[in-house]
Amino acid sequence: MAKQWKVYLAGEIHSDWRDKIAQGLREAKLPVTLLWPITDHDASDNCGTDILGPEDKQFWKDHKAAGINAIRTGGLIKQADVVVVCFGGKYKQWNSAFDAGWAFAMGKPLICLHSGDLTHALKEIDRAAMAVAETAEQVVQILKYVTQ
Amino acid sequence: MAKQWKVYLAGEIHSDWRDKIAQGLREAKLPVTLLWPITDHDASDNCGTDILGPEDKQFWKDHKAAGINAIRTGGLIKQADVVVVCFGGKYKQWNSAFDAGWAFAMGKPLICLHSGDLTHALKEIDRAAMAVAETAEQVVQILKYVTQ
Amino acid sequence: MAKQWKVYLAGEIHSDWRDKIAQGLREAKLPVTLLWPITDHDASDNCGTDILGPEDKQFWKDHKAAGINAIRTGGLIKQADVVVVCFGGKYKQWNSAFDAGWAFAMGKPLICLHSGDLTHALKEIDRAAMAVAETAEQVVQILKYVTQ
Amino acid sequence: MAKQWKVYLAGEIHSDWRDKIAQGLREAKLPVTLLWPITDHDASDNCGTDILGPEDKQFWKDHKAAGINAIRTGGLIKQADVVVVCFGGKYKQWNSAFDAGWAFAMGKPLICLHSGDLTHALKEIDRAAMAVAETAEQVVQILKYVTQ
Amino acid sequence: MAKQWKVYLAGEIHSDWRDKIAQGLREAKLPVTLLWPITDHDASDNCGTDILGPEDKQFWKDHKAAGINAIRTGGLIKQADVVVVCFGGKYKQWNSAFDAGWAFAMGKPLICLHSGDLTHALKEIDRAAMAVAETAEQVVQILKYVTQ
Amino acid sequence: MAKQWKVYLAGEIHSDWRDKIAQGLREAKLPVTLLWPITDHDASDNCGTDILGPEDKQFWKDHKAAGINAIRTGGLIKQADVVVVCFGGKYKQWNSAFDAGWAFAMGKPLICLHSGDLTHALKEIDRAAMAVAETAEQVVQILKYVTQ
Amino acid sequence: MAKQWKVYLAGEIHSDWRDKIAQGLREAKLPVTLLWPITDHDASDNCGTDILGPEDKQFWKDHKAAGINAIRTGGLIKQADVVVVCFGGKYKQWNSAFDAGWAFAMGKPLICLHSGDLTHALKEIDRAAMAVAETAEQVVQILKYVTQ
Amino acid sequence: MAKQWKVYLAGEIHSDWRDKIAQGLREAKLPVTLLWPITDHDASDNCGTDILGPEDKQFWKDHKAAGINAIRTGGLIKQADVVVVCFGGKYKQWNSAFDAGWAFAMGKPLICLHSGDLTHALKEIDRAAMAVAETAEQVVQILKYVTQ
Repeated sequence: MAKQWKVYLAGEIHSDWRDKIAQGLREAKLPVTLLWPITDHDASDNCGTDILGPEDKQFWKDHKAAGINAIRTGGLIKQADVVVVCFGGKYKQWNSAFDAGWAFAMGKPLICLHSGDLTHALKEIDRAAMAVAETAEQVVQILKYVTQ
Repeated sequence: MAKQWKVYLAGEIHSDWRDKIAQGLREAKLPVTLLWPITDHDASDNCGTDILGPEDKQFWKDHKAAGINAIRTGGLIKQADVVVVCFGGKYKQWNSAFDAGWAFAMGKPLICLHSGDLTHALKEIDRAAMAVAETAEQVVQILKYVTQ
Repeated sequence: MAKQWKVYLAGEIHSDWRDKIAQGLREAKLPVTLLWPITDHDASDNCGTDILGPEDKQFWKDHKAAGINAIRTGGLIKQADVVVVCFGGKYKQWNSAFDAGWAFAMGKPLICLHSGDLTHALKEIDRAAMAVAETAEQVVQILKYVTQ
Repeated sequence: MAKQWKVYLAGEIHSDWRDKIAQGLREAKLPVTLLWPITDHDASDNCGTDILGPEDKQFWKDHKAAGINAIRTGGLIKQADVVVVCFGGKYKQWNSAFDAGWAFAMGKPLICLHSGDLTHALKEIDRAAMAVAETAEQVVQILKYVTQ
Repeated sequence: MAKQWKVYLAGEIHSDWRDKIAQGLREAKLPVTLLWPITDHDASDNCGTDILGPEDKQFWKDHKAAGINAIRTGGLIKQADVVVVCFGGKYKQWNSAFDAGWAFAMGKPLICLHSGDLTHALKEIDRAAMAVAETAEQVVQILKYVTQ
Repeated sequence: MAKQWKVYLAGEIHSDWRDKIAQGLREAKLPVTLLWPITDHDASDNCGTDILGPEDKQFWKDHKAAGINAIRTGGLIKQADVVVVCFGGKYKQWNSAFDAGWAFAMGKPLICLHSGDLTHALKEIDRAAMAVAETAEQVVQILKYVTQ
Repeated sequence: MAKQWKVYLAGEIHSDWRDKIAQGLREAKLPVTLLWPITDHDASDNCGTDILGPEDKQFWKDHKAAGINAIRTGGLIKQADVVVVCFGGKYKQWNSAFDAGWAFAMGKPLICLHSGDLTHALKEIDRAAMAVAETAEQVVQILKYVTQ
Repeated sequence: MAKQWKVYLAGEIHSDWRDKIAQGLREAKLPVTLLWPITDHDASDNCGTDILGPEDKQFWKDHKAAGINAIRTGGLIKQADVVVVCFGGKYKQWNSAFDAGWAFAMGKPLICLHSGDLTHALKEIDRAAMAVAETAEQVVQILKYVTQ
């Protein structure tokens, strides 16, 4: 039974949690393909105006960028078997929560990753999740168990 | 043509935006039924343990409460024709963003309501929305136009 | 058997075909509720900027208006039992064709209404339709037969 | 992460925009498979009667052709990850707008491609799109960004 | 618990099985609304050309009629809670079997009604059904039990 | 906001938990319509052969009865807003667990009702549920909170 | 563009139309994988009792066989891109019409294959089809055109 | 026609029925990939607390484990072509019945495997199944027939 699992890593782009998961999966040689959004903050913010021309208003600059990023995000979440969403304490990350809601509505099993001090603020998303982890290592362990 | 529209008001529970919209709709006598989550913060936090028994850990207390609230939230969003989601600057409101993602995935047209300084942080949700308003009055105007 | 049928009238807003159908249905006392988009051309073009504030660029003015109109259009097509789409020779009416595609994808039976000289240009939409009429009177006859 | 993306190129068949996109993708060596309708105008118009026998009326000739073309169009749009739809000023292209509505209803992210003078006429489809480009080169840039 | 059940009666239009079921339901005062196709054979055959104009070829005459009838059939099956399909020995009734397949694919519970000598020919549809009755009276009994 | 909620009560038919919930809802005057399967054990077992004729083999007797019961069960679960499923220690109640899986797959929020000693055996269904209650009174409290 | 198309061949098992299509596809080297039901009439009739044990009644013998055949039929239709359904004049072939209805409800493009004398009896299925062919050669031509 | 079939083996983990099916498939060289849940009872019970930390209450220990197991179960059932569910007389196996309900709701053809003495208790699930087998050998025979 050698199913290749596709796991989308949503959320936080300012820490190295994606790298840790990738490394853990490599070391354990798991049959998992990782998918993720563009994590280059500047590219993600500017892609709309860089490609489609400048805007005077910040709102429309963001609008154009968000549209292009959604092509990637939507396409990858749709084909994922599992969605991991990571939250940090520093940023709003409303897009991560939005992605989690979207993935949940499509029946994708969610794994939440965040430190314990965010528990109360994330209770609705944690409730929708199949597992709530505090470390990247735990996510790797879950994927190891699930895909064995 | 007298369709009764159902509009779910998600998000922020610490300001009076729901009241303003309700009043505006009443004054304009629009064919709109408003739906919303439980907005009593304490009841919402404690319903799980109040009804189903105490928990030692905050995580499970939250988990129980979030489950019960989701019965209401899910049931009402599912039957809504339009979902309005309001964000304020003060709280994380990840559940609001989650609801928006969920509603969007179910094909519900979204109206976002927030002040201009949150534009960048909300760009993905604004992109998914059919309209982005800064005041409750604008939401009323949109509903007036749409349901005429 | 007294089912009330909901029929959405998409397309052309510069001739009186909707009125003719409405009158025909009234005279025949059919159990049909008619639904339609905002047909006031100026209101439809300006609703975005009228409600949500002005834009320098025509593109974004249109964008805002189209979003608000889509709340109505989408909501009404979703609940329609039958969608009638009317094309005239004068305007592009790409939105009418878009609505037809959307309705078709949702499994709504389509009735196309247009004069014979548009046959070749409309062949794909006519193919997707359950009936192709040339006059409003024929649409009324179809609805009379279907809802008897 | 080597997902192969499938991109369907709908619309206009009288200019070389498909070739430009194909060439741009080849040069950039992107992991994209292009899909498109039959672009031989005469074959597309005549396939029904060529294969299934002649018709006296233009309407039924078109009807037969449109049915066969829809087998291809429908099959390819259904499996596409992204749909690009191109409009020119010269033809009605109602089928392109219909395809866009169909693709949109199936949750496919749309990219619109057209010159600026068509903005007002295409506002509803542009609103439904994730990006609106004016040149084939911009479409290539978007696909480059999205599939990196 | 006073749910009103909607039951669509598909199939055979040359015997009085619909009347028998209707009478049985009336006598038992069951909370059932019956829905059915146009059962006037001539009207059903000619509605296309009567309303939309004559055709030289039988094929297109039938095509037009079948389209209009499908508006009714599709609309009513979609809203039915239960679909009863009746087969007689005399006619092909391929449309009845097609309706059964359509209804089944939409998750509607099927009740088949036919005499025992058709058992082998109807085995696939009987297999898909929740009950196989030989008399209209049995169908009434089933509906009585189910809706009590 | 006077939504009428539909709640399906699945499972156990040998204790009076349905009556307790019904009474609690009546006393609290909640806007809830209760739906349930046929709870007369003998009628439920015999309906197939009583209506459609006898069978020599127990397997086919059960098969016929189960088909007829599924018409009711399926129809009612489909329209429910919430599904409560109750398990007792005495019977297998595999059909209750099957109904729970079916309801869950259709996105219905589940409430599980069972005593604490069944916790381990029911862990998968409890996990899928939005709330796990030990008494009928708790179910009433949840519905009171949710529908206020 | 080398999409491999999957085409399911439903219907008639007493003539060699499947072989003709298979040969035509081979000669034209089309990128088509053909799928079909078990066409050995006796095996198809007896598989239920051969594998799962004998039955006294014809009805249950048929029931068992039809269930096993449906595993194959359903699984293959679900993954097909196109469904061809062939009708002959000799047999009832209600299962073919049922398969067509099922396939249609799942959005599969249908091609009908039958001689002209069956036109009236098949008008509803022909209407639902994207093309109606009278010879296997025409089906091959359609697939050649569609998959080029 | 070399479709590779995916078959999920749900249910009972205390007898060797999965091994028997696997061996039968190997000997017959069938194009079948078998999928199954984690069948190590202890690992399945403890995975939640082993990976995500201990719990004082049995309920939450089970809850965590059930969530992680559901990631695997859900992911594999979703991609299965056929689901086989086996019941023994000894355990409650409510999760197996839940999986069967879930799979059924997703349109997966079910094969039930159990001894004859469980017939009455399993009548609803047997009714939903396409075949009811008493031995692993019969399941192999069905798969052999279906995938030939």
